[in-house]
Amino acid sequence: MNYLDKTAKLVLYCEGEFGRGKSKTAEGILRYSDNPIVAVIDSTAAGRSTMEMVGIESPVPIVSSLKECLSLTPDALVLGTAKSGGHLPEEWRSDIVAALEQGLDVVSGLHDFLVDDPVINKAARQNNRRLLDVRRPPESLPIASGLARDVKAFTLLTVGSDASIGKMTVTLELCKEAERQGHKAKFIATGQTGIMVAGGEGIAIDRVIGDFMAGACEQMVVDAARDHDMIFVEGQGALAHPGFSGVTLALLHGACPDAMILCHNASRIGIGDCADFPLQRLARTIEAYEMMASLVHPSKVIGIALNTSKVDDAEAKRQIQDCERETNLPCNDAVRYGCQNLVEAILAFKEGSLCKQA
Amino acid sequence: MNYLDKTAKLVLYCEGEFGRGKSKTAEGILRYSDNPIVAVIDSTAAGRSTMEMVGIESPVPIVSSLKECLSLTPDALVLGTAKSGGHLPEEWRSDIVAALEQGLDVVSGLHDFLVDDPVINKAARQNNRRLLDVRRPPESLPIASGLARDVKAFTLLTVGSDASIGKMTVTLELCKEAERQGHKAKFIATGQTGIMVAGGEGIAIDRVIGDFMAGACEQMVVDAARDHDMIFVEGQGALAHPGFSGVTLALLHGACPDAMILCHNASRIGIGDCADFPLQRLARTIEAYEMMASLVHPSKVIGIALNTSKVDDAEAKRQIQDCERETNLPCNDAVRYGCQNLVEAILAFKEGSLCKQA
Repeated sequence: MNYLDKTAKLVLYCEGEFGRGKSKTAEGILRYSDNPIVAVIDSTAAGRSTMEMVGIESPVPIVSSLKECLSLTPDALVLGTAKSGGHLPEEWRSDIVAALEQGLDVVSGLHDFLVDDPVINKAARQNNRRLLDVRRPPESLPIASGLARDVKAFTLLTVGSDASIGKMTVTLELCKEAERQGHKAKFIATGQTGIMVAGGEGIAIDRVIGDFMAGACEQMVVDAARDHDMIFVEGQGALAHPGFSGVTLALLHGACPDAMILCHNASRIGIGDCADFPLQRLARTIEAYEMMASLVHPSKVIGIALNTSKVDDAEAKRQIQDCERETNLPCNDAVRYGCQNLVEAILAFKEGSLCKQA
Repeated sequence: MNYLDKTAKLVLYCEGEFGRGKSKTAEGILRYSDNPIVAVIDSTAAGRSTMEMVGIESPVPIVSSLKECLSLTPDALVLGTAKSGGHLPEEWRSDIVAALEQGLDVVSGLHDFLVDDPVINKAARQNNRRLLDVRRPPESLPIASGLARDVKAFTLLTVGSDASIGKMTVTLELCKEAERQGHKAKFIATGQTGIMVAGGEGIAIDRVIGDFMAGACEQMVVDAARDHDMIFVEGQGALAHPGFSGVTLALLHGACPDAMILCHNASRIGIGDCADFPLQRLARTIEAYEMMASLVHPSKVIGIALNTSKVDDAEAKRQIQDCERETNLPCNDAVRYGCQNLVEAILAFKEGSLCKQA
């Protein structure tokens, strides 16, 4: 994709929805994007800090409107929230058009593509600006045939006990830590925010047509394996999520990971934080992933990444200890306490599996 | 979909590919369509019989070209084979255009839509004929949220140890048998051939965008449950198929079946009949389906539908006996010997589960 270059200055559009569990994309970009970020737009949070709203330390101001941050000369407006289903809310259109008229490109991770909206498309053309729909998959994708089983690189997939639990974040942290330790590591983005963080590279698997989801993932792993020794694939959804489980399994069978890190939030009461779908015990969740993996390429869950963002430090540490005791696996909150122990476990497992191959 | 009416006379287009395991669509239509079929087109098999080519008893002639059957006044050309990946082969285009020029509608189950092909689209408009792309999903689909768990109708899903193993056929046979026994039974088509057989009704789940696959299935089950007491959902792919497993799981979690019938072909050496992917033992396959179901809505495999089309009668009966012994479940080849024992098992299970609810 002909994406933004790394010096492009971003404004994150989160009108009415910054924080409150609805601005996953904006938060991911705040935390991980290489691009400079000049402001967050949310009139309901203007003047407050990113730390206060989403727990991320940053100097980025929250403003009421695009107008208020034009003096900071932004280059692109990034839609930083995604309604369930990924449709374009009517009320966003005028703000998007205004941004195009002010000379900004617009980046979107919605299921509905901006280029397909006649009003927005026209405004982009009139102002000679770009609409970057990062969720648009490539035109031609293969049907997976298990090719990722045979790559030389060690492949790790993050999986989850639920959706929206921090798999992208954990994957990025693991990859960074592996790079720090001298590995040629590659992050493979499989969702819209991951693609934005990865400079436009990756495929949003949940936007791919069913038959080609696993093939899209397989293709990315096979390509990345050519010049990397460790591949970290961002997981999606959860095997127990009634809406997204198909995407999750396609990723598992497309990527053929050698190992998995299970992402979990011990504070959730159920799938989608909904009591109607109680979370499985961790042992059963692990068993489900390992069994499904074994049907194509055996893999093991070798660590747990806990998301403790909802609890205080003492409770977080207790959750981590409980989880280690329950699963007998290394556990950590990668954002709060780092993920060195998880990467150590991954590297030890990698060495072990290479020895087995030799 | 504004589909063909039930009196429309069909020609099945299978140039170069009738039989040889490549004309699944044509065979399904030959066996189950209510529409009259005037001919099969395949110049490499012209003059032979459908029994000889695909093992189906029928008076339908195989001819070399459309021209040869125009005297039978066909109304529609149905593309009866699907290349892997579902793309439109270049060499079909001229035959499709010729059919449109002869006044026929054209029905297609390809991933590539005929309406998106400029040459074909133009020919259809010039001749005022219809292009019926049955694999095109509805514009707007929900994300599944487990709604099918709560329907009053008994829901059965066919699942498989592999793809292309006869799930649609088995589902239709089970549904017909249940109807024969007085039930208000509904067949839910989830693939292109099923949709053609069902008069244009259904959604090809493998053509739906990942996030909405389960939702599409859920919506069909919830709708059908309003005025049927038994729902038979056509399965797709297999949990152990590296390319299609995501579609399979989306169907399982979208449909929330009360019970499953496992479709199996004991003559296959592996997934896609490929030795690189050996088939799991039946017990393990059953365990995989039941475990995945249990994450959203518990379900049991209560019978095995064997596809014995590759072996003689004695071997078929031996396979059925072996399978019953191995799984301790009723087993049959629904096409060869009927499926009364399977439907009996389904009805007994249905009564049992209703009692449990009461």
